[in-house]
Amino acid sequence: MSKKESFTPAWTEEAPRQGTYRSIFKWGDPAGFKHPNRGFYGMIKDVFQMTDTDFGQPQEEGNETVECGQPIRLSDEQVRAFEGIVGKENVHSDDYSRVKYGAGKTMEEAMKLRKGVVESAPDLVLHPRAREDVQKIVACCSEQGIPIYPYGGGSSVTFGFQCAKGGVSLVMSTHMHRVLDFNETNQTITVEPGILGPAYEKMLNDAPEVFKAKRRYTAGHFPQSFEYSSVGGWIAALGSGQQSSYYGDMYDIVLSQEYVTPAGSFKTLDYPGTATGPKVNDIMKGSEGTYGVLVSATLKLFRYVPENRRRFSYLFPSWEAAVDASREISQGEFGMPGVFRISDPEETDVGLKLYGVEGTTLDKIVRLRGFKPMERCLYIGSAEGEKDFSKNVAKNVRRVCKAHGAMSLGGYAAKRWEHGRYTDPYMREDLNDYGIIIDTLEAGVTWDNLHRLHQGVRGFVKARPRTICMTHASHFYPQGTNLYFIFIARMNDVEEYKAFQAGIIDQVEKHGGSLSHHHGVGRMMAPWMERHLGTMQMDVLRALKRHFDPKGIMNPGGTLGLDLTPDP
Amino acid sequence: MSKKESFTPAWTEEAPRQGTYRSIFKWGDPAGFKHPNRGFYGMIKDVFQMTDTDFGQPQEEGNETVECGQPIRLSDEQVRAFEGIVGKENVHSDDYSRVKYGAGKTMEEAMKLRKGVVESAPDLVLHPRAREDVQKIVACCSEQGIPIYPYGGGSSVTFGFQCAKGGVSLVMSTHMHRVLDFNETNQTITVEPGILGPAYEKMLNDAPEVFKAKRRYTAGHFPQSFEYSSVGGWIAALGSGQQSSYYGDMYDIVLSQEYVTPAGSFKTLDYPGTATGPKVNDIMKGSEGTYGVLVSATLKLFRYVPENRRRFSYLFPSWEAAVDASREISQGEFGMPGVFRISDPEETDVGLKLYGVEGTTLDKIVRLRGFKPMERCLYIGSAEGEKDFSKNVAKNVRRVCKAHGAMSLGGYAAKRWEHGRYTDPYMREDLNDYGIIIDTLEAGVTWDNLHRLHQGVRGFVKARPRTICMTHASHFYPQGTNLYFIFIARMNDVEEYKAFQAGIIDQVEKHGGSLSHHHGVGRMMAPWMERHLGTMQMDVLRALKRHFDPKGIMNPGGTLGLDLTPDP
Repeated sequence: MSKKESFTPAWTEEAPRQGTYRSIFKWGDPAGFKHPNRGFYGMIKDVFQMTDTDFGQPQEEGNETVECGQPIRLSDEQVRAFEGIVGKENVHSDDYSRVKYGAGKTMEEAMKLRKGVVESAPDLVLHPRAREDVQKIVACCSEQGIPIYPYGGGSSVTFGFQCAKGGVSLVMSTHMHRVLDFNETNQTITVEPGILGPAYEKMLNDAPEVFKAKRRYTAGHFPQSFEYSSVGGWIAALGSGQQSSYYGDMYDIVLSQEYVTPAGSFKTLDYPGTATGPKVNDIMKGSEGTYGVLVSATLKLFRYVPENRRRFSYLFPSWEAAVDASREISQGEFGMPGVFRISDPEETDVGLKLYGVEGTTLDKIVRLRGFKPMERCLYIGSAEGEKDFSKNVAKNVRRVCKAHGAMSLGGYAAKRWEHGRYTDPYMREDLNDYGIIIDTLEAGVTWDNLHRLHQGVRGFVKARPRTICMTHASHFYPQGTNLYFIFIARMNDVEEYKAFQAGIIDQVEKHGGSLSHHHGVGRMMAPWMERHLGTMQMDVLRALKRHFDPKGIMNPGGTLGLDLTPDP
Repeated sequence: MSKKESFTPAWTEEAPRQGTYRSIFKWGDPAGFKHPNRGFYGMIKDVFQMTDTDFGQPQEEGNETVECGQPIRLSDEQVRAFEGIVGKENVHSDDYSRVKYGAGKTMEEAMKLRKGVVESAPDLVLHPRAREDVQKIVACCSEQGIPIYPYGGGSSVTFGFQCAKGGVSLVMSTHMHRVLDFNETNQTITVEPGILGPAYEKMLNDAPEVFKAKRRYTAGHFPQSFEYSSVGGWIAALGSGQQSSYYGDMYDIVLSQEYVTPAGSFKTLDYPGTATGPKVNDIMKGSEGTYGVLVSATLKLFRYVPENRRRFSYLFPSWEAAVDASREISQGEFGMPGVFRISDPEETDVGLKLYGVEGTTLDKIVRLRGFKPMERCLYIGSAEGEKDFSKNVAKNVRRVCKAHGAMSLGGYAAKRWEHGRYTDPYMREDLNDYGIIIDTLEAGVTWDNLHRLHQGVRGFVKARPRTICMTHASHFYPQGTNLYFIFIARMNDVEEYKAFQAGIIDQVEKHGGSLSHHHGVGRMMAPWMERHLGTMQMDVLRALKRHFDPKGIMNPGGTLGLDLTPDP
């Protein structure tokens, strides 16, 4: 092995020091790392015309101690009032807490925190202990006109926690992560919103031990942020898990919810079917904390039978073939796969590099069989449910894929993807350390508009020299799917990044994609909402806002585009 | 055969004379009849202590010519304005039109029309030709404060068309039944709301001929009112078809909608999945014409493959066993049956009489095997979808039924039920002609509350001497189902009937059932809505009402309980 080949970039391998900016923007486990492998690293150097010497010293690591720099606008009396409600130990006004709970995981927030830039923060961070605390906080804030920002797991990629107007951040995950009811007859569980993915899923898997249940269950909801996102966040921002094609989106999984709003508290009806007018349960989903604070939710459960899972993967000769086959699978009425993911040619080739397939004998065979780089597309999937049901799904998937010219790669790629499904975001810090941004945007789309949207966004991104644009579709319905765009670029200037990102969102909107399929709107998509929904529909959301929150204290400052200043 | 046995009641066999009350309240095809068979007739006589001589002469047949008797409160100028909008030929103010389009199919309306009682009517009946007509009508009515009542197929059983405040009835089914778009790629169709079930289903079945499509499709929505209800009505009142357990409720089937409201016109987004805030498409579903007029809808389609259907029926030893098996089927994750229907012991026994099984050799064998009258329960069903999918559903249903002590009756009962699914309502006129009411109420319910609701309602109904109460569950979800109550009683006094019905609704509400699973709220359930939803949630619906319809002109007079007078 030559010296050059054995070079390893100086990837950071240490947990960030406590109290630093890096400890805030770093994804996930402080001691968790996943570095670009040799193939990916080689591609990065190649695309961005970088050399090993560019990877000797990380830049703008954000290792400084956090300074908030934003004044606290609440009076001592107001602070004491909150201490009286949640207890002194659950009220924090230190710089670190204010910056941490006022930031999410957008690329822009990470770029700014790396530079030590803090543009907004809550005045106070509160950790409510139960619904009653939330009711008192909302009443107090309502009376005094103090903004409230709910915070769950902290993984928002839409500026969901940006406290543009000061006020209080409510951290729901500190105390409010309890189970309120487990109902095996109805196959439901009622939980407080602050519970995070792993704890939630584990107790369902362990239901016989935890709840003396007859069976094991699963939430069926596995977003990539699974380990660091909360049930409340999944509902508030309308998340979709990586097996949503089978289990449904969070929108489908929520049976009922309980809210505390400035207008009062209520719990929605929990019927699986009812014809008693517009469903308030559905009206509240996706309201992103702008109407009130979610304090509990009843969710549907599914049987946990991993032994019935069947994994498969296929290589298609073209993106058109992969899309056509996916549509046929989605409309075929033999049941939907759980994991269901097709990668476009660029993502497929990056993936083959990433997994070390490129250049191997397998790669040669595949090419000889006509599956060419920048044409071929990877499809990975799995079937869930009852044994013969999942078997039949896998059988039909095979039939459809073959009919569209695909070659089976067996279950290995799917298993490998599953294994790494939550760890890929760890690579962002490594890339960022060397001035390379990696970011994502995603959109819902109907089948008939998929290629137009794909080409429109790619056209814009690829017009920028030396920019990677990978796309996959991973949430399928009979009427369409989503497109998930990942772009990688060497870019260090925040303003350049913002303009680039805005340009992409423009393209999504222009080409008929939904502004978000499962990240939510937050403040990031807000400026596009009026054009996307039209004024009439925005007026509906605003009418609800006025009803629930006449003083505009709930997650103010642009969320959902409800209270944008006239010219954003 | 003895003389007594050969007696046939003087069932009406003639289409009602045009212009009569009977021509309005009679169900369905004027020349369509289905009379109680010998077994059912025998049971009726037995339960109500009637003899053949009671069935010699129909009573209160409503054969008189309709007189409206309600003043027209619109000025000549207003009438001319509407004539200017839709054309003179589409404006009707004759007594017959006003009574016909101001009445639905409730038992109470039929009882009153039989007596020649008309308590309310629209001033004018309009037949809009297209969206533009509706926009002009809504603008005109908005300006002048004239109430608007949309009318689709006319099958409402919740006083959906009661024009308590005069104004104009909009008959959507006369002209607005066109196809606006057929999209085979997305598997959707966009239609005007006035199209009725049979025309809608037929063109989908005939898609290759009608739309040059590659495949045949089905709406998947078959309410009992299928032949005389409209797509718009299905959406407005949140209908569920008799195969909803597989195809979903109308709530699930609607991809997007276009409305004309006093606040303006809009079309909702048509993404199969999107995370762009609360979904206006869902907010409008179930609004029963109180927010605006539905002018078009885009609906999901399913593949029409009747050759894959598998029918089955089973007899369970008890209601508990039938419910437990149904829950296991609904939660088993092998796919849901399409038709999925369990009858409680009383309905089962009536059914066995109705189908001539009682007293036969089969009946004797069944009894010997321990399936006793007033204990045994019938389950009928069918599986849809891809060939092996439906096969696997049927196989698993069989497994679950056997495990719960059921005996297979083969596919015959299911096929027989299917054959008669739309014709049973024709029997109402026969019973009513002899002073016997037959009516239904239905509620959504979670599994854990099913028996309590069933017993609560039955307890009330059966406390009345000589009253039949049959119950079935026919719309299944993993978290619960519906209960559909049919009650038959000898009763001729409208006030007695109203008190009896109110008593039943009280029991539904008291025992935790949803006020309606799929008939909607209308004006019938309105007085219970505030208690059922709670004031906080009713306030949400009222806030939306104020937004869309600040002057309260859209379907006013109690619908959804939005504008009830303080003490209903």
